[in-house]
Amino acid sequence: MIKIEGGVTAPKGFKAAGLRAGVKPTATKKDMALIVSECDAVCAGTFTLNKVKAAPVKWDQAIVDTRETVRAMVANSGVANACTGVKGMENCRIMAEAVAKHYDGMVAEDVLVLSTGVIGAQLPMDVICKGADMLVDALDDSVQAADDAANAILTTDTRKKEIAVQIEIDGTTVTIGGMCKGAGMIHPNMGTMLGFITTDVAINKELLVKALKGNIDDTFNMVSVDGDTSTNDTVVIMANGMAGNKLIDKEDESFEKFNQALYVINEYLAKSIAGDGEGATKLFEVQAYGAATKEDAKLLSKAVVCSSLTKAAVFGRDANWGRILCAMGYSGAEFDPEVVDITLKSEAGELAIVKDGVATDYSEEFATEILSQNPVIAIVDAKAGASSATAWGCDLT
Amino acid sequence: MIKIEGGVTAPKGFKAAGLRAGVKPTATKKDMALIVSECDAVCAGTFTLNKVKAAPVKWDQAIVDTRETVRAMVANSGVANACTGVKGMENCRIMAEAVAKHYDGMVAEDVLVLSTGVIGAQLPMDVICKGADMLVDALDDSVQAADDAANAILTTDTRKKEIAVQIEIDGTTVTIGGMCKGAGMIHPNMGTMLGFITTDVAINKELLVKALKGNIDDTFNMVSVDGDTSTNDTVVIMANGMAGNKLIDKEDESFEKFNQALYVINEYLAKSIAGDGEGATKLFEVQAYGAATKEDAKLLSKAVVCSSLTKAAVFGRDANWGRILCAMGYSGAEFDPEVVDITLKSEAGELAIVKDGVATDYSEEFATEILSQNPVIAIVDAKAGASSATAWGCDLT
Repeated sequence: MIKIEGGVTAPKGFKAAGLRAGVKPTATKKDMALIVSECDAVCAGTFTLNKVKAAPVKWDQAIVDTRETVRAMVANSGVANACTGVKGMENCRIMAEAVAKHYDGMVAEDVLVLSTGVIGAQLPMDVICKGADMLVDALDDSVQAADDAANAILTTDTRKKEIAVQIEIDGTTVTIGGMCKGAGMIHPNMGTMLGFITTDVAINKELLVKALKGNIDDTFNMVSVDGDTSTNDTVVIMANGMAGNKLIDKEDESFEKFNQALYVINEYLAKSIAGDGEGATKLFEVQAYGAATKEDAKLLSKAVVCSSLTKAAVFGRDANWGRILCAMGYSGAEFDPEVVDITLKSEAGELAIVKDGVATDYSEEFATEILSQNPVIAIVDAKAGASSATAWGCDLT
Repeated sequence: MIKIEGGVTAPKGFKAAGLRAGVKPTATKKDMALIVSECDAVCAGTFTLNKVKAAPVKWDQAIVDTRETVRAMVANSGVANACTGVKGMENCRIMAEAVAKHYDGMVAEDVLVLSTGVIGAQLPMDVICKGADMLVDALDDSVQAADDAANAILTTDTRKKEIAVQIEIDGTTVTIGGMCKGAGMIHPNMGTMLGFITTDVAINKELLVKALKGNIDDTFNMVSVDGDTSTNDTVVIMANGMAGNKLIDKEDESFEKFNQALYVINEYLAKSIAGDGEGATKLFEVQAYGAATKEDAKLLSKAVVCSSLTKAAVFGRDANWGRILCAMGYSGAEFDPEVVDITLKSEAGELAIVKDGVATDYSEEFATEILSQNPVIAIVDAKAGASSATAWGCDLT
């Protein structure tokens, strides 16, 4: 697998655009993005578990649940189109049609819609429709076009987030590109997370769905406080088959290769979101090992990464193992605190700070040095089983 | 029921003291407290659910689980005696003995021990033992003595928290006094919560336990983020019977009267903790009605009160109903967002901002006026059943 330049336009047959339509109040900010595939692309998506689902979430979910393929993804930032009732749903359709009308044979249901921004406000449809026209005109398969799209979806983010990788499947080069938005708003709440993935792999619907869902649980779902899902959280993927590989239609080696590459994309994007919290200075990764169950491993890693006290200790370069142990203790996971190991790790090295539940006689100076790097990794071993999980967050200034 | 001056020394037969022994580094801060009953007092306690339990939690739990009565509670701030192994348990006993030795027939197990402060450090036992001697000398039944004790248990708190109430049971005056410590440290984590309750009611052990446990679920347990319980959280109560009422030994009217008065004490103390977050300017109360189950009502009220976005909106005097609805949506409770009502309330008045899932055409000016008062109350009606719950927190600056 190699990492290549660019983002969603890296795979064959995908064009993108990002520009300012006028949804956001700030006159200099891009606020609409479009990705179009030359041909029908198999689609899959994962969506927020929040009971309150924004109109575009309902629109997309209905499409990926009932259709094999789509042709495009259109997005806006500035207004979330959430809590907008019947009119919000109508506006989703109008936004999709504003793209579809430019292409022969394309219908509104060929277009996935993603929105992020203020809850409760209706989309300014004149602006959105004019924006869709401009986006179609601006479509391009360049790195710059992908970059424009990646910038247009941001809200409270401090930087764009995109990636592209290539793998060989049966001697054929397959490319996957991705972009996302999302950042810690006011700790511990995350803003909306939107993920857009494009690939030229040839894969059937069932396995594309399987790969995406399997990935999301261990990536995007490991960056937020449990349950804190916004009204709009969405990750969608389009696979247009233009790489020309033999269709992946069973869980063979080719599927595994694709699945692993997709994981790399999702992990990169999820970590980019985790490290982009308001006022955050570094990425904080917590690896939980030796948990009794996978669920317990997730509880442990999330409890530590989400604890403000732990996050503040990482910022303060203070190897406060008591706070880590306390967070493990209230995680809900089953373990015996008196056998736990805790290790800190970064580019500066690795240091065991708790061994068998007791603080080691570690060098505070070295601990501070480890905590001064970016990223900082805490490794907790519960010694209660064989399951593991990794969660990501940021420090807290 | 009447509210009277004072705290833990208000009930008959209780003396208290609070002073500086030298546990805390700051030379001006009180750091040890003692409460002694003239005679044996029936005891009960509730303790942290954290897997990592501090030594004094284990000490106290063993006592209230196996003994009918105790005579005293001794406490220190500055060092939590948590994650301190066998030595920490030994130090608990030494601390209890340092009090017990001053009284004929009193043993270490007659003394409950409560600690709060830094995790992982051992108690300075010379300081603690000298402090215990000084405390015994300083014991007094005055309002000032209770006040000294209430001050000596504080850590990150910005103010002392104490209360006393009187009720009539069968024509006899019964008094309950209480004090606590606890405050939001770094949002959303709470510091350790310690609660000390004294009463001269005559009640048997079983019913004292029942009253305390029933109360705590709806008071102290409704101020923290779910699961965020420290290594040391403890609420203990001593009932010495000196009021002379007929022993409460069944769930009759007398029990109900006592139970309700104890609830008032616990609610007051819990709200005092909730409103004392770092940088908080006001108490934020969330009442959830119409939930399908009591558990759902708790999930709803806690999700809203714990959401940073909602707390920041309260501080910003911004009636952001989208944030409230979003928090309800990720609470895990079952409800239909399209029928929900949301109301804001304070001394300035009451305002329906969402009716049947749709924002009302409310006056933003009046909403801002409501949110400018202290406390601010948000009332959410899920219209999914008949259960209700109230949670408390603070705004977020």
